[in-house]
Amino acid sequence: MDFSSKYLEQAVQEVSQLPGIGKRTALRLVLHLLKQPEDQTVSLAKALVDVKTQINFCTNCHNISDHKLCEICANPKRESQYVCVVEDIRDVMAIENTSQYRGHYHVLGGKISPMDGVGPNQLNISTLVDKAKAGKVDEIIFALSSTLEGDTTNFYIFKQLEGTGIKTSTIARGISVGDELEYADEITLGRSILNRIPFEASLKS
Amino acid sequence: MDFSSKYLEQAVQEVSQLPGIGKRTALRLVLHLLKQPEDQTVSLAKALVDVKTQINFCTNCHNISDHKLCEICANPKRESQYVCVVEDIRDVMAIENTSQYRGHYHVLGGKISPMDGVGPNQLNISTLVDKAKAGKVDEIIFALSSTLEGDTTNFYIFKQLEGTGIKTSTIARGISVGDELEYADEITLGRSILNRIPFEASLKS
Ligand SMILES: [Zn+2]
Ligand SMILES: [Zn+2]
Repeated sequence: MDFSSKYLEQAVQEVSQLPGIGKRTALRLVLHLLKQPEDQTVSLAKALVDVKTQINFCTNCHNISDHKLCEICANPKRESQYVCVVEDIRDVMAIENTSQYRGHYHVLGGKISPMDGVGPNQLNISTLVDKAKAGKVDEIIFALSSTLEGDTTNFYIFKQLEGTGIKTSTIARGISVGDELEYADEITLGRSILNRIPFEASLKS
Repeated sequence: MDFSSKYLEQAVQEVSQLPGIGKRTALRLVLHLLKQPEDQTVSLAKALVDVKTQINFCTNCHNISDHKLCEICANPKRESQYVCVVEDIRDVMAIENTSQYRGHYHVLGGKISPMDGVGPNQLNISTLVDKAKAGKVDEIIFALSSTLEGDTTNFYIFKQLEGTGIKTSTIARGISVGDELEYADEITLGRSILNRIPFEASLKS
């Protein structure tokens, strides 16, 4: 692409760094902003910088938060002896949306994926194991997507927990194997949390 | 959606204002930025604000430019007696990419579309007619998409030019009626510029 302005070129270049956004789409988005009042671009830019510089990650569960502890961990009514292990904060949002779960979460930040160079050390696994070994957790509920990487991650954590006597379970699946958790409808997802099964049982199927 | 951070919520809100970007996609993009180094977000934000505050529109043809005149209008080797009328700057980029056209452009900024509340006064039409009436233009080449709105716009300008004796033509179509110009391949588009036909002839077909 030949740009008539270096500012335009730079903006398209930056926007097309985002995942799933090609150069054409980036150009369309930037030209759209050009037609809007300046306020809109300024507040978009500010919001992006704010989210990057102002946001915290909950020191207990790694959920995104504006404070040291997220609202869930800070809420004394939540049952901290249950810990639901999820891949990222979109999964927390999806499960919270069902209003079926009253425990805590633990956000791993991804799944073990040797192909993508993601090993256990790149994920928030050790803090989960520490929490479990500190003796305040009764049950760990695996709620990762049921893909190869999800299963690998579940199993890795399961092995780390051996000897702790902590109950492990996985959410029941009403949805197809391989589907992303965050796209499940609320009812299916809520039910799958309530009908969770012991993790060992899930290995047999 | 229930957000665990007001900064996250605000950023998703802003990003989902962009055309074709829903809340889920916006969340995915913002979470992606959160995983990247802070530099990336800062330079994205800066590029967006720069493009909005620093960019000029060429006073002659309304193309995007970093100067008062765009590179095309400022180039003495371009043949200013030919004016190719396009909808937006993406079309300028597409035609320039063919290397088949050596004239000037005129960027309307849209098409006449009563359904969307876009009339001739919202477009850069009067400056085109003024330029034509100033006697420095030999030929006006319509290169709008061949949709109802494109045809309406062509015809409106054609009527405004009556009596000026200026030759009008439309680019030849090797591509399907209704297709967007910017997605045409370079060869088809280059050829269609070279094989342009008088506008009156296009009305008969
Ligand atoms: Zn938390
Ligand atoms: Zn120009």
